[in-house]
This record gives sequence, structure tokens and C-alpha cells, in this order.
Amino acid sequence: MTLDEARAADAADPLAHCRSRFALPEGVIYLDGNSLGALPVATPAAQSDLVERQWRDRLIRGWNEGWIEAPQRVGAKIAPLIGAKAHEVIATDSTSANLFKLIVAVLQASGRHTVLSEAGNFPTDLHVAEGAVKCVPNARLEIVTRESIAASIGPDTALVLLTHVHYKTAQRYDMKSITTTAHAAGAMMLWDLSHSAGAVGVDLNGADADLAVGCGYKYLNGGPGSPAYLFVAERHQGRLANPLSGWMGHAEPFAFADAYQPAPGIDRWLCGTPPVLALSALESGLACFDGVTMAQLEAKSAALFELFTARAAALGLECVTPAGPAARGSHISFRHPEAWPINNALIEAGVIGDFRAPDILRFGLTPLYLAFEDVWCATEILSDILSTGRWREPRFAARSRVT
Amino acid sequence: MTLDEARAADAADPLAHCRSRFALPEGVIYLDGNSLGALPVATPAAQSDLVERQWRDRLIRGWNEGWIEAPQRVGAKIAPLIGAKAHEVIATDSTSANLFKLIVAVLQASGRHTVLSEAGNFPTDLHVAEGAVKCVPNARLEIVTRESIAASIGPDTALVLLTHVHYKTAQRYDMKSITTTAHAAGAMMLWDLSHSAGAVGVDLNGADADLAVGCGYKYLNGGPGSPAYLFVAERHQGRLANPLSGWMGHAEPFAFADAYQPAPGIDRWLCGTPPVLALSALESGLACFDGVTMAQLEAKSAALFELFTARAAALGLECVTPAGPAARGSHISFRHPEAWPINNALIEAGVIGDFRAPDILRFGLTPLYLAFEDVWCATEILSDILSTGRWREPRFAARSRVT
Repeated sequence: MTLDEARAADAADPLAHCRSRFALPEGVIYLDGNSLGALPVATPAAQSDLVERQWRDRLIRGWNEGWIEAPQRVGAKIAPLIGAKAHEVIATDSTSANLFKLIVAVLQASGRHTVLSEAGNFPTDLHVAEGAVKCVPNARLEIVTRESIAASIGPDTALVLLTHVHYKTAQRYDMKSITTTAHAAGAMMLWDLSHSAGAVGVDLNGADADLAVGCGYKYLNGGPGSPAYLFVAERHQGRLANPLSGWMGHAEPFAFADAYQPAPGIDRWLCGTPPVLALSALESGLACFDGVTMAQLEAKSAALFELFTARAAALGLECVTPAGPAARGSHISFRHPEAWPINNALIEAGVIGDFRAPDILRFGLTPLYLAFEDVWCATEILSDILSTGRWREPRFAARSRVT
Repeated sequence: MTLDEARAADAADPLAHCRSRFALPEGVIYLDGNSLGALPVATPAAQSDLVERQWRDRLIRGWNEGWIEAPQRVGAKIAPLIGAKAHEVIATDSTSANLFKLIVAVLQASGRHTVLSEAGNFPTDLHVAEGAVKCVPNARLEIVTRESIAASIGPDTALVLLTHVHYKTAQRYDMKSITTTAHAAGAMMLWDLSHSAGAVGVDLNGADADLAVGCGYKYLNGGPGSPAYLFVAERHQGRLANPLSGWMGHAEPFAFADAYQPAPGIDRWLCGTPPVLALSALESGLACFDGVTMAQLEAKSAALFELFTARAAALGLECVTPAGPAARGSHISFRHPEAWPINNALIEAGVIGDFRAPDILRFGLTPLYLAFEDVWCATEILSDILSTGRWREPRFAARSRVT
């Protein structure tokens, strides 16, 4: 594909108009929306309204003017992006805290003791599971290779905990297939959607999934440290209990009773007071999906990926992301022993991707605001950096705290 | 005190200049800063800088430009308000989630099994403790009356969980005395400072306290649903483990290892990705305390209280808040069977206090931005509403979801 052809692809892109929903900085090609989504154009005004009108003028009255329902309202806006019903999703806490709630809840309700997950899963999923199993007698965490997951689901498996799209390789699980395997063995299935929701198609109810979590700051564009969300299939809502039984999950939080009585439905998964400022920013991020279908996201993501791989083919990079569109998410990753300085050289040249230890160069192909021209130019710059060996300049070796 | 005398008290008030640090709405006397602090004048610009410069322009690079340290940086700014060292406090999650972490951590590290708390403690403290004890074998929650607390601390008490200033009555515990009693019996002490920090003197290390939590949206002015904080005394930091073992509490979060290795020190109490927008607002709230001493807050609070009680004495209201300054926090509460409509009538008249079920009228006397004239005028309006019986008008009976 030539630059002109890339521009023609942009002109024909049914999602091209969505780019103007984002405030992308000049001089940057942003290939890291899979880590932190770009700022939506509408967010600053919404934040100002929240801070300078609602908080300043309405003060405590704001709780009765939309704040208290924010977790449910935002959850309902996430639902169509993950194939869930509105009342099956709630926006609250962090992905990590939500994982903890659901893992402990399943173990407490189950006669089984094993949580099964994948070696190399996103660290917080494994770390949280490690802490969660210590909170239920005789529970244990079993970590096996990706290839062994299906065969390892056994009679003691209470829960299979997997990330739908792998944070490094972008490998995507067949959600329906693994869920069916888990159910056949009597286990429940918990999906982490952090790297898929908002970029590829997700159909939790179509896959008969039980539970899911995901973060708000990647493809959902909620801002740094945005609240996460949590999905509990309707059929499980009455029987699972939130171990983080804070007052906002109470059936009547403002009755101020001593004894905890869980709210019916999804509300019981709340814990503390809703983070109103952050939820508002997430709501602005979700508005960027207005009128966009999952099929459009999936198709655009696949097309951007094809362009990237075609252009990168000549560079001799080892791609660790599967080639088939259904087998991957919306980022593309390469293994290179010098991924760190190469990524730094790219950033200096205005192409922001990221590095994942120890040797992964990762590029997010955000379907909502990335143009084919962006990918064309980014791969041109990547090619230049690799062919000139410019990344070997000493300044690109400097380490930073966050990678 | 006459109105002129109230104005004279304002003129002599060493904290009078702090009022201009807040954007108080016209036509409102705000007596609910104990529930939601007022908007600091500096917050909108700081939020704009965060959203429209840091997030928009710096994107993912923001994590290396101040975001990742926000929990520790904000914690260090809370420390002087609670008598803690900077590295003993971290801003993270909600008060409820932080309570859960600390309760489970203590029970897991203790040979004892009982968490002791007070009937009528703030509901989330009891609710969370109820969920937490289910996460440790043989653990139990014992709830006794306030008067029985000291006598109920026994050989199986692992933890005493109390709120320093009671959310309804404003009764304040003698922190040092109860902590000493708990320690003498071999128990640890966890203080909820939500209704005290930023309004009255708190000296955690002076009291030899072990653990504490508190919220950011009351006297700390962090905005609705602001992140909470957590204190772990230096001497316990190496031996207590966070059950919510998310990646941000890992010793090396960006090494992306499968196994959890807790960070040394206070950092291990982090869980998910820090809520950067919300932490920034809390930081702006804390800046309002620049140059203000705890002694000044305590003295101003006491003086506002004296004025309120003197003016309310003739109204025949039953005050449930103790008279002695050291025995109470910074709000004043009255019991009245018609507290709900009276509070609504007050709000309509521009005096915002709040109602706590079933029969409490509560008024926050925020020392940082409330003037003596405010209290004088508010009590004048309260007097008028009670003497005319205006609160009996039917519209004041309407219920709202949040009270």
C-alpha cells in the first residue's frame, strides 16, 4: 500500500469521522491507545461542568442529581461493547479490586478449590488471584501454560481466569470455546476484557460467560487510572456475594443499618463511595462510541493490522501476534532484544508505542481514532530507525520508572 | 453573640484568609463540609492542566512525569494532618476497600480471631468487617456498645476498629487512651479518621496507633468520591500483607513477573492503577491546608461550635454532640423526630446541613472556610424555621434517594 492508497482507505473508512471525537496532539502518531486512550474532545467541558457547576454550586445535592447512579449508568454504556445486558455491568473500583471480588465470591460459593490461570497472564490477574486464594480455606491457584489451559480444567476447578486478549502478544482466546469447555467441567469462567473491549468484538452472553472485568483507561478512553467495570451474568447475580461488602453495595445504604444486606442485582458489587469525577470522564470516553458497531471496530482493527504487517514485513522483525484476525486483539507486538531503545527512538520521532519487559515492542491499533495514514507513516519511521540503527544512540538506553 | 460580634470574631480569626481558597456558591451557607467538602478555587485549573495538557499532550508519558508517584505524594500531604510520617500514608482506593485490606491483613498475621467494633459505627466499617472476617478462618466480628468497648477487648481480640469521630453524634474517642488499652490487651488498633482529619487534631504516632484509614471527600476537599487513604505505622510495614495484592503493590510492577512480591513499605497497599484525575483533585484539596496548623483547626472548630450551641440553646433541640471540645469532632447534631423535613426546609432557605436516619439533623462546622457570621445566620434561619413551623409544609416531606 502506498501513502496515497492509505489516504484513500481513510477516505473510505466508515469510522473516519470518529477521529474528530478525540483531541490528538500535533506531531504525534499515537499507537498506545491500548495502554492509555487519547483524550476525547468532549471530556474537558464535561469535567468542567462536573467540577465548576455540579460540585461547586450543587455541592452535596449532586448525589441526588445523577452522581449516585453513575456506576450503573456508565456500566450500562459499557454493556453494548461487551455483549452484556445493561443491568449486568457496573463501573467501579479498579480491575484488580474487581478481580479480587469475583474470585473470592466464586470460591466462597463453590465446593471446589482451584482457580486456574495462564502463565504470563497480565500480572495483576495472577497477583490478585494469589491474594484471593489466601482468603478462602484450601483454595489454590494453578498456573499453567496457555496450551495446557483446556486440558487442565478438572473436577476441582472452581474458576478459569483468563485475559481475552493477551497484553503482550495480543493473542485472543475463542471466548465461546473455552467457556464451553469450562462449563462442561463444572467450572465458572472469568474473562479480563481490558485489552479487548472497545477494540474488538466481545459477546459475553453469546459465549454464555459467567463473569468479566475490564479497565476504563485503554480503549474506553476514560483517562489515566479510570474506574474499571465488572460483569456478572444475570443468572449468578442472586447467589454470589461481594467480599468487599462496603456500604454502597448495601440494599439500603442510607438506612445506615449495622448489618450488611446485599443489594439485589449488580449493585451489590459496589464497595465505597463512587468516584464521581473519574466516572464522569469515563462516561465522556464511552460517548465516543456513539453510533459505532462492534463489527466496524473489528473490521477497522483488522485492516490497520494488515497494513502494519504488510509494511513491517521487510523489516525482519519477529511478530509475536497471530496473523488471523479472529485470533488476535487490536495491538501488534514484535520481539526484539533491543525493544527498549528502539521504542525510545520511536517516541522521540513522534511515534508513541510501548515496551513490555523484557523484549516486546507493542503498537496499539486503536480503531476509533487511528487513520491508515498514521500506520503508514509510523511504519515508515520504524523502518528508518531500524535501517539507520539510530536507536543505538546512548540517550535511548536511559531507563524510566514506568515502561 | 450578636451579628456584629460574630463579624468581629471573623476579623480576628487567624484562618479567615483560608475562606478565599474555596469557591463557595452565592446564597448558600454550607454546613455539610463533613460530608462533601467545598470546591477549592485552585482545583479547576489543576484539573484542566491534568486533562488538557498532561493527558492530551503527554499521553502515556504522563506516568513518568508525576502520575505514578501520586499516591505517595498525596499521602505525604495528608500525613501532617493526622500525625503520621510521610512514608506511613498512601492515597488509594476507597475507605471501604482500605478497611478490608487492613482488617484481613491483621487477622492473617494474628493468632487471634476477633475484630471488635462499635454498634452504630459508620455502616461501611461494620459491613466491610463483616465481609473481611469471612475471608479468614475462624475469624469473627464482635459488635458492642460504645460504653463496652474498652471492657470487651480480650485475649482473642486481634483488632479494635473504631471511628475517631462518630459520623452521627460527633463523639470523639480519646485516641491515645483506647489505643493504649488495646495494646495492653495485645490487640491492634485501626482508626477510621473520615470525620476527623482536616477538622480536628489527630496524632496517630503520638497515640502509638497501628493502622488508620480515612476518606478524601469530606474535610480534605478532594471532591465527590475522592480517593481515600491508609496509614500503616512504620513498625508494621514489613510484616502485614495486603490481601488485595494488585500489581501496583508489587515490588517491581513493570518487571511483569507472574509471582507477587510485595513492595517494601507503604507502597504494597496499592492495588490497581492509581486514579490520576481523582488524586489530582485531592491534591488540590490538600493544598488548602498550606500554612494551617492542627491547633488552629481545632480552636476554630471549637469556637464555631460554641457559637452554634449558644445560639441554638433557646430552640429546645436535643443536642447529641458532647459539650467538651476534646470529646467531639467538628460537626454538631440534634435529634428531632422531624429532622427530615426540617433539613429540607433549611436547604430551601439556603442552609445546607444534612439528615442522618432516622432522626438526626447534622451540621458540619468546617474550620477552614466557615465564618462565624455563617453560623450566626444559619442559626437565625434555623430558629425561624422551627418557630414558624414552616418545615410542616408538604413539599418538605418528599424523600430523595440519597440522604
